[in-house]
Amino acid sequence: MNTSIIRFILGHVLRIEGMLFLLPALTGIIYREDEALAYILMAAITFLLSFAMTIKKPKDTVFYLKEGCVTTALSWIIMSLFGCIPFMLTGEIPDFVDAYFEMVSGFTTTGASILKDVEAVSHASLMWRSFSHWIGGMGVLVFLLAIIPLTGGSNINLMRAESPGPSVGKLVPRMKSSARILYLIYIGLTVIEFILLLVGKMEVFDSLCITFGTAGTGGFGIENSSAGDYTAYQQWVIAIFMMLFGVNFNFYYFIIHKKYKKAHEIEEVWWYLGFIIISSIVIFTQIVGSVGVIEPAARQAFFQVSSIITTTGYSTVDFNTWNTLSKAVLVTLMFIGACAGSTGGGMKVSRIVILSKTFLKEAGSYLHPRSVKKIKMDGELIDHDVIRSTNVYLVAYTMIFVLSFLIVSYDGKDLVTSFAAVAATYNNIGPGLGLVGPAENYSVLSSLSKIVLTFDMLFGRLELFPMIMLFHPGIWKETILSKTRCRKR
Amino acid sequence: MNTSIIRFILGHVLRIEGMLFLLPALTGIIYREDEALAYILMAAITFLLSFAMTIKKPKDTVFYLKEGCVTTALSWIIMSLFGCIPFMLTGEIPDFVDAYFEMVSGFTTTGASILKDVEAVSHASLMWRSFSHWIGGMGVLVFLLAIIPLTGGSNINLMRAESPGPSVGKLVPRMKSSARILYLIYIGLTVIEFILLLVGKMEVFDSLCITFGTAGTGGFGIENSSAGDYTAYQQWVIAIFMMLFGVNFNFYYFIIHKKYKKAHEIEEVWWYLGFIIISSIVIFTQIVGSVGVIEPAARQAFFQVSSIITTTGYSTVDFNTWNTLSKAVLVTLMFIGACAGSTGGGMKVSRIVILSKTFLKEAGSYLHPRSVKKIKMDGELIDHDVIRSTNVYLVAYTMIFVLSFLIVSYDGKDLVTSFAAVAATYNNIGPGLGLVGPAENYSVLSSLSKIVLTFDMLFGRLELFPMIMLFHPGIWKETILSKTRCRKR
Repeated sequence: MNTSIIRFILGHVLRIEGMLFLLPALTGIIYREDEALAYILMAAITFLLSFAMTIKKPKDTVFYLKEGCVTTALSWIIMSLFGCIPFMLTGEIPDFVDAYFEMVSGFTTTGASILKDVEAVSHASLMWRSFSHWIGGMGVLVFLLAIIPLTGGSNINLMRAESPGPSVGKLVPRMKSSARILYLIYIGLTVIEFILLLVGKMEVFDSLCITFGTAGTGGFGIENSSAGDYTAYQQWVIAIFMMLFGVNFNFYYFIIHKKYKKAHEIEEVWWYLGFIIISSIVIFTQIVGSVGVIEPAARQAFFQVSSIITTTGYSTVDFNTWNTLSKAVLVTLMFIGACAGSTGGGMKVSRIVILSKTFLKEAGSYLHPRSVKKIKMDGELIDHDVIRSTNVYLVAYTMIFVLSFLIVSYDGKDLVTSFAAVAATYNNIGPGLGLVGPAENYSVLSSLSKIVLTFDMLFGRLELFPMIMLFHPGIWKETILSKTRCRKR
Repeated sequence: MNTSIIRFILGHVLRIEGMLFLLPALTGIIYREDEALAYILMAAITFLLSFAMTIKKPKDTVFYLKEGCVTTALSWIIMSLFGCIPFMLTGEIPDFVDAYFEMVSGFTTTGASILKDVEAVSHASLMWRSFSHWIGGMGVLVFLLAIIPLTGGSNINLMRAESPGPSVGKLVPRMKSSARILYLIYIGLTVIEFILLLVGKMEVFDSLCITFGTAGTGGFGIENSSAGDYTAYQQWVIAIFMMLFGVNFNFYYFIIHKKYKKAHEIEEVWWYLGFIIISSIVIFTQIVGSVGVIEPAARQAFFQVSSIITTTGYSTVDFNTWNTLSKAVLVTLMFIGACAGSTGGGMKVSRIVILSKTFLKEAGSYLHPRSVKKIKMDGELIDHDVIRSTNVYLVAYTMIFVLSFLIVSYDGKDLVTSFAAVAATYNNIGPGLGLVGPAENYSVLSSLSKIVLTFDMLFGRLELFPMIMLFHPGIWKETILSKTRCRKR
């Protein structure tokens, strides 16, 4: 394995993180908070470290998928490691396991928090939490690709490892342009939401944090009531933008370039909207009776559906108190997730569509055993490799889920809490049900559970395989072997 | 579709059912119960009907997999339909939905009951419930194959549709002999358990019913406490035999024929035993503190693990009151299920093994993209079709599960009850958790839920595809079209 190029890219990642620290630092300075110092210090440290790691350029630029996986996994682990230090330095989250949980929750756009009183946290740290959602939403490596030219196959292999969805759709032949286009659309939508919230008389700081949280489909709130205290207008804006950030970004690309036919052909988007509409209507019928008035009931239903399917996790009400059918619908949406190529998590709608089509095809083959039917999506044949890897994804997904569930059960909390805690972190949603419901937080869990859930967040955000590769014994055997060989030469 | 051969086979199935009715009829006569009349009447009716349906032999003996699926699905639906009539005639279960639920639960070896007081039921009906487990365990069509020679490809296609597991292993080249060998092993084990229970001073009637329930991995009890009031010896016998009936029967075949190496090569069996040992130990450590004494704790843990993994569903204690980790282990076992080629339900251990191997292979392919690695099981390469259909099975399984869960949630019971009710019926276990736990029964659910769960039991027992084919619009379109064509000639 080419360890020098991994070191080199990780150095660049740390440099970006150093720049990112400047936003919470600035926020702290504006609000005259001492906490700003922690962020300035960390910016300096990461810059220096980055300098040391990138001073020597790697000779060998060979970069395969395995390097892509390991680099991606390590980037996220290391960014979270440095990112959580300010929480400990400021004393806002003194315990390492808690601070790391909170930071991973931020970068993976989960939004699960161990903070009991979020309103007591400094503006600097609140900004850092929300900002981490925005970075994690589109991915820091995709950002790196957008600004730095890398060679030797690293582009596509990094993008493939970090981007959500069963297959990476290249928008334009050059990877760097693809990454730029994605970030431009992302920034554009972010700015529009920010302005709309300002128009709705939300304060600048709040608007910025909430916009970051929505854009990355993260869900860290800055008030203890999550989004419950915002006005109807503000809630509608947030709900609609959560939905928009869960759409496959290729859709926007095609719309901007007036390729309406191609945009229309992205089946996933229509399934996604269909799920949202049907689920909202079902929940609306369940809650309208107790809410009493139509508009708030419709808003609550749509807001929660949009929040859960995009795996954002904001809430306007405590859906833990809803009836079983409504909760069952939400649990199902937790697993479906948003579109591939969006900032949302979960299994992704396109995977559900591919799996459904595989199933229908197989049922048909019982009827006509000799007919060879191919599966189409977006008007094109799906590659056999995509179907296979989607199936394997489902298997790996299920296994990791079951294993996590068993370990978290050891905590002794009830079954619903244990199940929902895993579902909500693994799918990068945030709030679960029971003791980790929207009106509660994850501080009730043991350190063991928190560590498992931290890994689940990383597994979920990176779609399993980069993390699995990092722990694959073959990777380490190979690396150690090649090191030994180098020394022998 | 060849409807005349389907009619012919269904006629034979009814004849067998007519014979089966004679056992509860005899039981009723021995105990001088009026309920015997209902069983005698039904025996007469099914004999007559069977005579009418088989008097004309089908000219066309063509029999494909689709005919196999439809025949199998219809056999089980119709057998349960006639089988539940005595419950209504005797007035013991007056409501049709309830009676049908109970009968399907019997034939599918689920063991979920809507009876609140099982001790109030007549001996005749108790015998019929338990006997239905025994028939359903190995399958009535496999029985048919063992005694009646059928032609035109019907043997393998019926066996494939009814037998559990990802692939039908033919023990000997001729299907009829395979079916006979399976039934001989089945009868042999049944007789041994019956004798061991008699030795343990259980009454003849009880021994017979419990043996039927164990052999079919069904789980209908004849006392309100399930197996809670039996002696330690009796509980150990039941626990060990549940485990034995969950083993792939090919294993016994090889042992009997002294092909020890071939028996040893059946990987599934070792995984299955491994799951049982590990789960028993985990649960033992969780309950030994409160039980206080080692032997009963070990017995309770092993009994419940053996009962749940084989999807039998007997219980010696109310495991609903166990801690979350123990319940989480049981829930996981519910989905794993027993070995393929046994009488147990669930997803089957061999499927889990195949899926795990697919996953490991895929992880390896990230490391060495160009290596073509094949998956082996039992020392032989697994056919690509088996892997594909196993993957599709997981997809179909999950979809039907989610859909059922959503409908049952509408009932308004808590999430754990709704989830466990579906898991326990779909995997043919019986008792779930919460309101449908081992100390409770399914009578609390609405008719809608009971209907959904009845279908789930059939889907689970027949491993989805025969039932899916029955509802496949293509099947019906084709049948109607061919009828029209015949008339035109």
